[in-house]
Amino acid sequence: MIKTQTLKGFRDFLPIEAKKRQFVIDTLKKVFESYGFEPLETPALEYEEILMGKYGEEGDKLMYKFEDNGKRKVALRYDQTVPLARVVAQYQNELPMPFKRYQIQNVWRADNTQKGRYREFLQCDADIVGSSSPLSDAEILSLVYNAYKKLGLDIQILINDRVQLSNIEIKYLMSIDKVGKVEAKEVVKELESKGLSVDEAKKTFDGVLNLPEPESVKEIKTLFAKMGNPEELLQYRSVMVRGLGYYTGLIFEVIIKGSTKLLSIGGGGRYDNLIGMFAGRQIPAVGFAFGFDRLMEAMEELKLFPADLITTKVLVTVFSKELENKSLETAQMLREKNINTEIYLDAEAKMEKQLKYADKKQISYVIIIGPDEAKNNTLTVKNLATREQKTLSFPELLDLLKK
Amino acid sequence: MIKTQTLKGFRDFLPIEAKKRQFVIDTLKKVFESYGFEPLETPALEYEEILMGKYGEEGDKLMYKFEDNGKRKVALRYDQTVPLARVVAQYQNELPMPFKRYQIQNVWRADNTQKGRYREFLQCDADIVGSSSPLSDAEILSLVYNAYKKLGLDIQILINDRVQLSNIEIKYLMSIDKVGKVEAKEVVKELESKGLSVDEAKKTFDGVLNLPEPESVKEIKTLFAKMGNPEELLQYRSVMVRGLGYYTGLIFEVIIKGSTKLLSIGGGGRYDNLIGMFAGRQIPAVGFAFGFDRLMEAMEELKLFPADLITTKVLVTVFSKELENKSLETAQMLREKNINTEIYLDAEAKMEKQLKYADKKQISYVIIIGPDEAKNNTLTVKNLATREQKTLSFPELLDLLKK
Repeated sequence: MIKTQTLKGFRDFLPIEAKKRQFVIDTLKKVFESYGFEPLETPALEYEEILMGKYGEEGDKLMYKFEDNGKRKVALRYDQTVPLARVVAQYQNELPMPFKRYQIQNVWRADNTQKGRYREFLQCDADIVGSSSPLSDAEILSLVYNAYKKLGLDIQILINDRVQLSNIEIKYLMSIDKVGKVEAKEVVKELESKGLSVDEAKKTFDGVLNLPEPESVKEIKTLFAKMGNPEELLQYRSVMVRGLGYYTGLIFEVIIKGSTKLLSIGGGGRYDNLIGMFAGRQIPAVGFAFGFDRLMEAMEELKLFPADLITTKVLVTVFSKELENKSLETAQMLREKNINTEIYLDAEAKMEKQLKYADKKQISYVIIIGPDEAKNNTLTVKNLATREQKTLSFPELLDLLKK
Repeated sequence: MIKTQTLKGFRDFLPIEAKKRQFVIDTLKKVFESYGFEPLETPALEYEEILMGKYGEEGDKLMYKFEDNGKRKVALRYDQTVPLARVVAQYQNELPMPFKRYQIQNVWRADNTQKGRYREFLQCDADIVGSSSPLSDAEILSLVYNAYKKLGLDIQILINDRVQLSNIEIKYLMSIDKVGKVEAKEVVKELESKGLSVDEAKKTFDGVLNLPEPESVKEIKTLFAKMGNPEELLQYRSVMVRGLGYYTGLIFEVIIKGSTKLLSIGGGGRYDNLIGMFAGRQIPAVGFAFGFDRLMEAMEELKLFPADLITTKVLVTVFSKELENKSLETAQMLREKNINTEIYLDAEAKMEKQLKYADKKQISYVIIIGPDEAKNNTLTVKNLATREQKTLSFPELLDLLKK
């Protein structure tokens, strides 16, 4: 017998989890669209040469690559930025510029699952391609703030300008980026381990720590406020440098307000040298990636999911084969009033079994139409949370359900 | 230089197309949920042994299979029924029974693209697992009818019971299934080519053609009507036999009303011997698969997509760097009124360029705030369809946009 299992790092999402995910996705989409961002979908499989070499050595290693039946070398989507770069080159004449797109699709990386990472996970990106204006930087920040706000999350955005760090080697920046997660002296130690002398390490670290807020950051803050957002939400942080090498200007990270761990739940910035890679010319871009799994965890922890995500409101039970008609009619009438309604799908099942089904699906109300109710043209409704029950007319039932 | 191309049979969906797809998906979800169907997501990759041998020889051949970095034999999702069977076995104690789930995910098949088939395409399934009641058959049909109705499609459902065909070999049934697409005499010829004598072929064909409507079909029709649906929508058709071998009872196909081609845009039926394959016992099931690409084609042809799928309603232009503030404020005020609004992201761009951008994105209204408007606290709004323009106060603008 075959063992029923999923691959390590891959997940099934059963209904309760799937609905929560859908809730977050739908909310984000609404905010994206309120700013004029439009959806884009790209294929799960690309020619390997489109993706290879774009994510560094590690990326090439973690990528799912194989030869298809036609001996083509193909690879599974590894992120959504390289496909975006391909799309921008391939459809240059069709796309409006600036091109504001969002993309919410799975990506696959054969990463070490022991680090709490998944091998299939949802990415959720919003980017503005083809504009180098600070208005675009501010708009991305405004979008990000409003998206988290809509989800009920109280956030802070750490911002910096990568330009003022451009004379420091990436490997040192990656150590400095750890400030806040580890103590300052450990950062200095790590810099030493990367080849700096004690003095150089201290000087490099202090140099970055004491960098004054640059004009570019001030300008973005002002625009952000003019867009109707609270300016204090943006917090300049000279040692927030973001690991990735491709940023060319604004960089930022989102943390949950008051969190001491500075755990980033998303981040982004300006990357003017990446999107043009296939088009053969520079195309400026600024964008943001929501860390979807971390976002889901934070929402769960802070209990931000609405209680009525359980979508079925009413289960109409079937008392007997003879009274089935009455139940079918009632279910139909409720659905016509836009109330999500189930009918129990077996006229022979005992009432107890039908109630258990409603409990398992966390359905709020159960309706019973027995011989008395049928005769009097009423129905009995039971609130499964309080276990209260009442016998009502159909209009009275509607009043109750609409409360 | 790398050629920017997608793999044969794989598609990018640019914003206009992506929005149409999203519209159909959202509509279907709403109908599914009104009946208490719940979402399920399964991974793109499964252990090969979960999928192999479940789709016949052709399936094994067309499946995307490879060895991952950990030398595991894996395969890309080929349909959503086998993963459902795995889920039902794997989470038996957690799932409510009957388990009513819908699943809308991509599947991958290395099929011949010359037949107009794609290698990556969206499947959209709704199934009831764990109930053998005719109420379930009728509910699936009711769901299907209401889903297409909600999308604006006028359909007919051809139905039959596979049980009454169980003494006829599948290979003959597959020829008989072609009635309506090809002439009767060609069907008979095809039967002959499969080894029947002239007499046997005619007798087999006429036998199926003249099968009277069975009681099971009548019962389902009655239940369907009791659920508030027009009974005449279900049309018994003895020669509609569906190709797949796994059906065990009700079978049905959806065609567009009045279509002479009998082109199926979706189909389904009862399959009681499939879902239990991993659980090691029989688990009854009935379900339906929407042919998503055909559905999209039909919606396009019949012009059923709403005109306002272009989500941005207003572009607020930026007259000059000095007047940028006014534009930012206006955009913010419109968004607060739940009007999807873009601001043009470059204060230096000529007005002509800004208007061209609005045209390209098919944005309905453009707002201009020049020095006069700024002084008088008004704004000029231009309807891009009619090219009309008016100078209004902000409340007057809201009235106009809400019309």
